[in-house]
Amino acid sequence: MTTPTPLKNPAHAPCAAALVMIDFISEWRVADRAALLRQVERAVPHAVRLLLGARRAGVPVIYANDNFGQWRSDFSAVWSAAVAAGEAPARIAAAVAPEESDYRVLKPKHSAFFGTPLDLLLEHLGASTLVLCGVAGNQCVTATAIDAHMRDYTAVVVHDASASRTASLHRHAMEQLKDLGLGVVAAGSVRWTTLLKT
Amino acid sequence: MTTPTPLKNPAHAPCAAALVMIDFISEWRVADRAALLRQVERAVPHAVRLLLGARRAGVPVIYANDNFGQWRSDFSAVWSAAVAAGEAPARIAAAVAPEESDYRVLKPKHSAFFGTPLDLLLEHLGASTLVLCGVAGNQCVTATAIDAHMRDYTAVVVHDASASRTASLHRHAMEQLKDLGLGVVAAGSVRWTTLLKT
Amino acid sequence: MTTPTPLKNPAHAPCAAALVMIDFISEWRVADRAALLRQVERAVPHAVRLLLGARRAGVPVIYANDNFGQWRSDFSAVWSAAVAAGEAPARIAAAVAPEESDYRVLKPKHSAFFGTPLDLLLEHLGASTLVLCGVAGNQCVTATAIDAHMRDYTAVVVHDASASRTASLHRHAMEQLKDLGLGVVAAGSVRWTTLLKT
Amino acid sequence: MTTPTPLKNPAHAPCAAALVMIDFISEWRVADRAALLRQVERAVPHAVRLLLGARRAGVPVIYANDNFGQWRSDFSAVWSAAVAAGEAPARIAAAVAPEESDYRVLKPKHSAFFGTPLDLLLEHLGASTLVLCGVAGNQCVTATAIDAHMRDYTAVVVHDASASRTASLHRHAMEQLKDLGLGVVAAGSVRWTTLLKT
Repeated sequence: MTTPTPLKNPAHAPCAAALVMIDFISEWRVADRAALLRQVERAVPHAVRLLLGARRAGVPVIYANDNFGQWRSDFSAVWSAAVAAGEAPARIAAAVAPEESDYRVLKPKHSAFFGTPLDLLLEHLGASTLVLCGVAGNQCVTATAIDAHMRDYTAVVVHDASASRTASLHRHAMEQLKDLGLGVVAAGSVRWTTLLKT
Repeated sequence: MTTPTPLKNPAHAPCAAALVMIDFISEWRVADRAALLRQVERAVPHAVRLLLGARRAGVPVIYANDNFGQWRSDFSAVWSAAVAAGEAPARIAAAVAPEESDYRVLKPKHSAFFGTPLDLLLEHLGASTLVLCGVAGNQCVTATAIDAHMRDYTAVVVHDASASRTASLHRHAMEQLKDLGLGVVAAGSVRWTTLLKT
Repeated sequence: MTTPTPLKNPAHAPCAAALVMIDFISEWRVADRAALLRQVERAVPHAVRLLLGARRAGVPVIYANDNFGQWRSDFSAVWSAAVAAGEAPARIAAAVAPEESDYRVLKPKHSAFFGTPLDLLLEHLGASTLVLCGVAGNQCVTATAIDAHMRDYTAVVVHDASASRTASLHRHAMEQLKDLGLGVVAAGSVRWTTLLKT
Repeated sequence: MTTPTPLKNPAHAPCAAALVMIDFISEWRVADRAALLRQVERAVPHAVRLLLGARRAGVPVIYANDNFGQWRSDFSAVWSAAVAAGEAPARIAAAVAPEESDYRVLKPKHSAFFGTPLDLLLEHLGASTLVLCGVAGNQCVTATAIDAHMRDYTAVVVHDASASRTASLHRHAMEQLKDLGLGVVAAGSVRWTTLLKT
């Protein structure tokens, strides 16, 4: 192209915080599927609470989701596959469904920063605080949280809106993030209006 | 997610080369629109020749295209906008239209490597030689070609399948790439079978 | 410069593996200094064993070390400060001292891949397997190991040649890496000649 | 390490601009050495003028320099080799010599952003405007300037403090950067106090 891309998206005024929803949209073709889905379904109501709070406060919501080995830049295909899978995958997808104005980032690997425009999107949104939740807490959420921390974002991981394969893997992952200096909180204690003032 | 993503896409066997089509899909809302579109329409038949040759030889084709300030991971919206614009934008899009099995990478800025999974996709395809064409030759094609060269890909830019706002800006950009050590060739001299042997 | 940099370093023939020593060279101005140093001094003999084995097998050794907020590209200043600190810092540095032909990478943050040429150096060495050890196991070693895994390296973390502030943080970090699909082994079970055949 | 690195360097208060000196320190073992050195020696007085102005205004100076295929994080070795080469290399190095408080970034490839901590260093300095000069104008300076532009820095290239192998390659490179939307100015027209107000 011959002119600079208009990078600021008009859907949002600059906002000091953003909510990042990691890998909720999936057919869940994974090892230990039943165990993981049980944990995820427990986390979903807390994730929904975060979503509602963020939308009410005008905080941008970003869905960072696996591209599942496809390289077609087609988020809606990922969405349709989850819905078509029915049962738990469809229930989870429906509960945390993106709205038209939400942002979508397809990621090829664990961290939502790796091989994606997430860092640039956050810069354009003006977001310096990231509230993160998703699956798996000890894998993609951890990898994304560490990457956010290294890039000098204030990263807050919401433990009860995230899920890992076992409760103990999840708890140890949250302890590790705390030891690294990140915030680890419950969904009920996220105060969006306070975050927006920082 | 809890299992490593299956990153190799089964659509292609490993292939030593890939064709990258840069920013052909557009409404062309740019400065000097008429002048640029005249140059682009001259380049399109050469780009089509490359496309046909790559497909015949089984070389993967990657469409790297501006996301136009949207962050929705939705290549088909970009495609639809170009088609809906009619006339030159629709003609160009139709001529170089992606097939189902082609790869798509939405890029937020000039280089197709910046804020995208292109590097990882190429690694998974096994491609070490990149044949590049597109618009603008002195901007996004140049930025992508320099990035490919820095990452140790063998980068070949096809000058007559690319276009810049003026013929002289285009010629100078191609000279600069040659001076940097990249290949600059005409579409008619790309020998896919030879590239695949390197 | 006007010619491509000669990037392959002649000090090593291509080698399928590399040993990465993370943050051993330090004045250890950290919280819980005494507790951490106790763990580090326990790990050092295992790290030395790795070093000797790697050198005997002709495997390149890379020292990835914090730049401690300085941006002077001066590894020897970091080294001198550790030695000048005396006692444990000097003992540790001396035990794992780099040789002239070893590689050095100063890192500004936790992961040795972030803001450094490590990925490019490994590509030039031809290394696809990384053996990692260092401090802290639950922080910089974990961040580096996850980054290596995302970049499709085969990453093996040597648990007894690494140290974290507490034994339990260390154990949980190792479990997390295993759950992610990485190798976690003892120094005594690293078989360099086998790694070089893969 | 177990505590976050203290990343802000106390040598500078936050500053809206930075001067980046690209590849002046070299033995100049390049093709067309004599032709290039003639152009470089013409550029040096303008680079010195920039250096003096930046230092007077309290603007941080960053030396971004090729690592020449060595991976030892040792800027002083690069410096010593240039001085030891005598004649033009030593004259050039002496004229633009770094001071103790200047920053140094060793780069493995053309762009000073690729495989280096430059982006992070600039963030920590608070710099949003980059004034760039160096060698070769149509190669490393161009690659660095495009990368700065893609990362939303205001990038200003100083044409007479930069040099390429031929005057025409240099002029075309500067035209290309202008066409991309970057500033291209003479050393005499850089107003540091104005830059610091933006």
